[in-house]
Amino acid sequence: MSEEPFVRFRTMILGEIGAALAETDPRSVEELTDRILGAKKVFCVGVGRVLLSLQAFTKRLAHLGVDAHFVGEITEPAITKEDLLIAGSGSGESLFPLSIVRKAKSLGAAVAHIGSNPRSAMAEYTDVMVRVPVRTKLALEDEIRSGQPMTSLFEQSLLILGDIIACVIIEKKGLDLHTLWQFHANLE
Amino acid sequence: MSEEPFVRFRTMILGEIGAALAETDPRSVEELTDRILGAKKVFCVGVGRVLLSLQAFTKRLAHLGVDAHFVGEITEPAITKEDLLIAGSGSGESLFPLSIVRKAKSLGAAVAHIGSNPRSAMAEYTDVMVRVPVRTKLALEDEIRSGQPMTSLFEQSLLILGDIIACVIIEKKGLDLHTLWQFHANLE
Amino acid sequence: MSEEPFVRFRTMILGEIGAALAETDPRSVEELTDRILGAKKVFCVGVGRVLLSLQAFTKRLAHLGVDAHFVGEITEPAITKEDLLIAGSGSGESLFPLSIVRKAKSLGAAVAHIGSNPRSAMAEYTDVMVRVPVRTKLALEDEIRSGQPMTSLFEQSLLILGDIIACVIIEKKGLDLHTLWQFHANLE
Amino acid sequence: MSEEPFVRFRTMILGEIGAALAETDPRSVEELTDRILGAKKVFCVGVGRVLLSLQAFTKRLAHLGVDAHFVGEITEPAITKEDLLIAGSGSGESLFPLSIVRKAKSLGAAVAHIGSNPRSAMAEYTDVMVRVPVRTKLALEDEIRSGQPMTSLFEQSLLILGDIIACVIIEKKGLDLHTLWQFHANLE
Repeated sequence: MSEEPFVRFRTMILGEIGAALAETDPRSVEELTDRILGAKKVFCVGVGRVLLSLQAFTKRLAHLGVDAHFVGEITEPAITKEDLLIAGSGSGESLFPLSIVRKAKSLGAAVAHIGSNPRSAMAEYTDVMVRVPVRTKLALEDEIRSGQPMTSLFEQSLLILGDIIACVIIEKKGLDLHTLWQFHANLE
Repeated sequence: MSEEPFVRFRTMILGEIGAALAETDPRSVEELTDRILGAKKVFCVGVGRVLLSLQAFTKRLAHLGVDAHFVGEITEPAITKEDLLIAGSGSGESLFPLSIVRKAKSLGAAVAHIGSNPRSAMAEYTDVMVRVPVRTKLALEDEIRSGQPMTSLFEQSLLILGDIIACVIIEKKGLDLHTLWQFHANLE
Repeated sequence: MSEEPFVRFRTMILGEIGAALAETDPRSVEELTDRILGAKKVFCVGVGRVLLSLQAFTKRLAHLGVDAHFVGEITEPAITKEDLLIAGSGSGESLFPLSIVRKAKSLGAAVAHIGSNPRSAMAEYTDVMVRVPVRTKLALEDEIRSGQPMTSLFEQSLLILGDIIACVIIEKKGLDLHTLWQFHANLE
Repeated sequence: MSEEPFVRFRTMILGEIGAALAETDPRSVEELTDRILGAKKVFCVGVGRVLLSLQAFTKRLAHLGVDAHFVGEITEPAITKEDLLIAGSGSGESLFPLSIVRKAKSLGAAVAHIGSNPRSAMAEYTDVMVRVPVRTKLALEDEIRSGQPMTSLFEQSLLILGDIIACVIIEKKGLDLHTLWQFHANLE
C-alpha cells in the first residue's frame, strides 16, 4: 500500500520519457552524432536543469575523446568555424541560449538545436534540429503532455538522449568500455 | 537502417533504468521522502555526473519549497542536527562524499545514502539507504550489469529517482503544477 | 636579481588597484552598502572572472547574514520588488548582465551597477552606480591605463571593493569577527 | 565625513595585502612560475573563496596558452607524471585539498602548495611551497594579523599573486597584450 506513489510515478515518468524519445527522429540524432564527430570542438549551451543535462553530456563526450565544453565554463576556449554549438532549449526562445546561438552563427560555427519547438526564433540559425516533442514553458497555456512539474520531461529526455549518443559513438569508434576510465578524472 | 543504433540503445538504456528502479525498495524511497519533508535543511553531496543529478534534484526541491543545498555551493550554509545530508555514491566508498558523511554525522545531522553497495564504508553512518542496485566502479572486475559506459546507469536512475520523489512531494503537499513557477528563478 | 619581475609586477598591480579605488566615490559605495542592508534579497550578476569576484562577494555577504545569491546558481530564487540586483560589468554593455538588468528592472527590483563606463546601455536601468574607473574591453583602442592583461584590474578592484563593503557591514552591524564562522559552511 | 569607513578599510586591506606579498619569497614564486611553464597540464585545487581565486588564475593561465584545469571541473582530464598540481590552502590541513595532493603525488605529479603554514600535513608531498604568511583558520586562537573576517586576506593575496605570475609569464613569453583576446572565450 505504501509502495503506491513511488510505483505510480515511476511508471508515469518512464512512460513519458519512452514516448518522447519514440517520437524523436533517429535520422536527426544520427546527423547530430556525425556533426559531433566531425567538429574540432563541441560547445553546449543551456540554462538551469537543461544545462545540468548538457554538462553530463559534455563530461561523457570528453571521456570519449571529444574536445567538449559548455558555455560559461572557467576555461572555455574561443569558438571557430570548425566547431559545433549544441543548444538545449525546449522552447527555442530562452534569452541566453538564443543570444549565444546568434553569436556562434556569426562566428561561422555550426549550430545544432535540441528542443521541442521547430518554429522558434532559434530555427533560422540552426543547421540540424533534434526534436524531442515534449511540453515546454511556452506551451503551459495549451495542452500539457506531462504529469511532471515544469520541463522535467525535457531535461530527463535530454540526459538520456545524450547517453544514447555516447553509446553510438562508443560503437562507431570501437571503444572498449573497460579502457574508457583512462580519460576520466583520476583525482576524485 | 540508419535508425538502428539509436533505437537499439534507446531500448537498452530505458530497459536498464526500468530494471534498476524496479529493484529499488519503495519503502526506502518513502522513508527518504519523509525525512526530506521533516528536515529543516537538506544537503546533497556527490562528485562528477552523480553531482549533476543531485544538483538537478536540489534545484527541483527548492522549487517545491524545501530549503535545499549541495555541498560546495557558493552560499552553502552550516549544517545542524535538524538537517539531512543525502549522499549519492554507487560504491559508497568515494573519498569526498564519505568524508562529508562522517563530518555531517559528527555534527548530528541525519544521513541518507543513495547507492548500490549496502556494505560500504558509508553504511555505519547511514540512517536510511535507498539501494539502486546497479553496476558501480568497484564492481568492474566482477559482473557488469549495464551495457553503458562507467556509471551512467546510476546517474540516470538517480535523476529519475529524484524526479519521482518530486512528484510524490507535489502530491503529498497538494501543490498545483501551474503555480510552481512562482518559486522558480525569474531572471533567466 | 631573480626577484625583479615579481617585485616589479607586485608594485605595479597594487599601485593600479590603489589608484582605481582612490578614484571611486566613497558616497556611491556608502549608498550601495545601504541598499544591500535594506534589501530583502541581494542578487549578483556578471560573467567570467568578474563573476568569480562577485561570487566571492556573495559568499561573504551570506556569512554576514545577508540573503545573497548570484544569477545562475542552482537554487536561485525569484527576484521581487524588495530585492537588489548588483551587476558587475566594466563596460556596462556585456550582453548577459545587461539582459538580466533589464529583466530585474521590469520585475521592480532595484539595480546597482559596478563598472567603469557611466554612459553605458546599463545606465538607464541603474539606481546606483559605483564607478571604478579602470580600463574596459571597449576602451582597448584608446588609452590603456593598466599594464595588466584584459580586465584584470577591474576584477581585482571588484574583489577588494566587495571585501571593503564586508568590513563596513561588520562594523555597522557590530558583528564579532570570532563568531562569524557560525554562518560558514561546516562540511568542507 | 561619510567617506570615512570606506577610506579606512580600503587603506587597511591594501596595506595588509601589500605586507603579505612583501613577505612572500620572490624565488619561490619564480620556481612556481617555471614549474607551470614546464608542466604539460596544470591543475588547481582549493575550496570556498580560495577556489574562486584559483579559478580566476586557471582562467587567466588558459588565456596565456597554459593547459590549465581545476579539480572538480566538468571536463577535468586525468593527471599524469608530466603535470603539476597547485594546492591553495592557508592552513595546509583542509581535508579535500590534502586528499587530492596525496592522490596527485601517488600518481607521480609534481605538487606546489600556496599557503601560510610551512609545517602542515601537506609539506611532505610538496615540491615547491609559496608561503604567503597570513592568518589562517588554524591560527584563530593565537595572533590575528588581519582586521578582515575569516581568511579574506589569503584569498585576496592569492588572486593578486596569480595575476603577478600571469604578468611574469606574459613577459617571459613575449606575449602581446592586444592579441591575448584571441584565446579568450568569444561567446560571452
